[in-house]
Amino acid sequence: MITVLAGGTGAARFLQGLAQVVPQRQVTVVSNTGDDVEMFGLHVSPDIDIVIYHLASELSPDRPVNGAASMPPPFGGGGEPFLKLPLANEDPGWGIGGDTFHTLEALGRFGHPTWFHLGDRDLATSIHRTFLLRLRRTLSQATAEIARAFGLEATILPMTDGHFRTKVATDAGILPFQDYLVKRQAQDRVRGVRYAGVRRAKPAPGVIEAIMDAEAIVIAPSNPIVSIGPILAVPGVRAALHRTKAPVAAVSPIVGGKALKGPADRMLADMRMEVSAWQVGQLYQDFLNVLVIDQADAELAPRIRELDLEVVVTDTIMKGMEKKAALARTVLAALKPT
Amino acid sequence: MITVLAGGTGAARFLQGLAQVVPQRQVTVVSNTGDDVEMFGLHVSPDIDIVIYHLASELSPDRPVNGAASMPPPFGGGGEPFLKLPLANEDPGWGIGGDTFHTLEALGRFGHPTWFHLGDRDLATSIHRTFLLRLRRTLSQATAEIARAFGLEATILPMTDGHFRTKVATDAGILPFQDYLVKRQAQDRVRGVRYAGVRRAKPAPGVIEAIMDAEAIVIAPSNPIVSIGPILAVPGVRAALHRTKAPVAAVSPIVGGKALKGPADRMLADMRMEVSAWQVGQLYQDFLNVLVIDQADAELAPRIRELDLEVVVTDTIMKGMEKKAALARTVLAALKPT
Repeated sequence: MITVLAGGTGAARFLQGLAQVVPQRQVTVVSNTGDDVEMFGLHVSPDIDIVIYHLASELSPDRPVNGAASMPPPFGGGGEPFLKLPLANEDPGWGIGGDTFHTLEALGRFGHPTWFHLGDRDLATSIHRTFLLRLRRTLSQATAEIARAFGLEATILPMTDGHFRTKVATDAGILPFQDYLVKRQAQDRVRGVRYAGVRRAKPAPGVIEAIMDAEAIVIAPSNPIVSIGPILAVPGVRAALHRTKAPVAAVSPIVGGKALKGPADRMLADMRMEVSAWQVGQLYQDFLNVLVIDQADAELAPRIRELDLEVVVTDTIMKGMEKKAALARTVLAALKPT
Repeated sequence: MITVLAGGTGAARFLQGLAQVVPQRQVTVVSNTGDDVEMFGLHVSPDIDIVIYHLASELSPDRPVNGAASMPPPFGGGGEPFLKLPLANEDPGWGIGGDTFHTLEALGRFGHPTWFHLGDRDLATSIHRTFLLRLRRTLSQATAEIARAFGLEATILPMTDGHFRTKVATDAGILPFQDYLVKRQAQDRVRGVRYAGVRRAKPAPGVIEAIMDAEAIVIAPSNPIVSIGPILAVPGVRAALHRTKAPVAAVSPIVGGKALKGPADRMLADMRMEVSAWQVGQLYQDFLNVLVIDQADAELAPRIRELDLEVVVTDTIMKGMEKKAALARTVLAALKPT
């Protein structure tokens, strides 16, 4: 069993590769929910959805989806065949490929913000999630139902079922995460990060077990501050990473001093940290065994080893399914007991 | 001030005509909410929306919408200009013209029923209504906000803010109204109608006043059993129609022994009533002054007069805006004090 701590797009691409290499049912994803947001009364879980869409896309239409065909639609309607899969957007990395934005545009007429680009098909996931939450399902249960409806066999766990919201302290004030990232396009200087709800947060059922019982743990190439940081901040998670016997590898999302996607590089710089794979290793040093860095950063290897970390240098730029699978293979090989 | 008791499509078409003849701000609509339905956790008010879309379509894009341009969007976003109006669907009579169904299709993947055809733009109205209701707005308040967002100047009142659901007793059991009408295509033999919640229902704020203070009242050409019937069943409404000094006219939705739209003819037949304009007059006899019938039914006039009703014979088939306006003019003329 492999457990992956995951943020959004980078994690989702890595997971697509991993699912080429090991059966999905051996994979458990612990997903960041710090960037969840209420939009027009709907509960949106962007990171969970990005991962689900990517793993659903990974399923080939020819491949029978185990259990899905025989699963009765849970709400009495004539559910669509599960093999008619949505395709995750390769670019920009979120949402469903070819989606339209008619509902969002119409919501704008009522004065709702339209800067968070929820497509019509993507919105259905949030409508369904909100429906399930109103039926008193937990976020874990809702997530499991959604993942199953998309034919996934991997286990997708939100990091917590509780209310947990990442806020970014900036020169323009303390902003809800999506306001910082999407509405204001990450243009504000970052002073720090706050987690609203963190003190009362409990790991969702299965999260601690997924860390303690894993054969190997991977920290996906996600923003260490606002994607992985919130997961590590949930009380009990970091301690479990300290206690687990499973080896832990991280893939650096910083390559050649830049974030592959998103504002991780600017955030690190604003917070006076080094913008490098070394910094990523430094942030995870207390529980990490292996840091996987890009060949562009090969010269950082000696400094990273000084952090008492094993270093694997490889191609971490996941262009196409082949490269995604190759990266997953390399990471798994580094985690094998020698 | 003119008050119109309204169901769905027939009422909405009549109101389009009325709005050609008198300023919208002099019109108050009391809308049936007995066919409201919860779909995927969203509160759908089909009759209210049909009326709003039709009245919004009636506004010419050249005509300035009073107050709308200067109204700040209520939720901080950059609301679309209000003059970019949705067009009500002339056929089938509900929804927004040219709408797509991508969200609904995607909801089907989760097992939600897809037989209630909510388009993507149409769905935005229900998302917004649900959002407002969750903010503890009443249905009246939510309806007013939605009508304003569409640039309407007419007052749209739900018949009640309470939970009121029309059920149709059929050979196949007691069905929620939309199950009877849309899901099962009104194919079941009807034994009667029940109104869940009727005993505790109160007229929404303004409904009784709209009846008592009106200069004239029109019962729109809507199904007398399941569109107007629920409004009349709200405690206090029928009594107000008895007490009001305003003259009351009804336009028969039955022409030549057939319903212009929907299952009114079959329902009347199943319930062993005459399928005719006379029957409509008979159902409203206790509060009606004038029945407007189609020229195809001219021979019914003497029998209708025996019900102690005034009869106006005219063309009630509302093909095109000209005929809609002509019908409204005829109805208003019949209501003028002589």
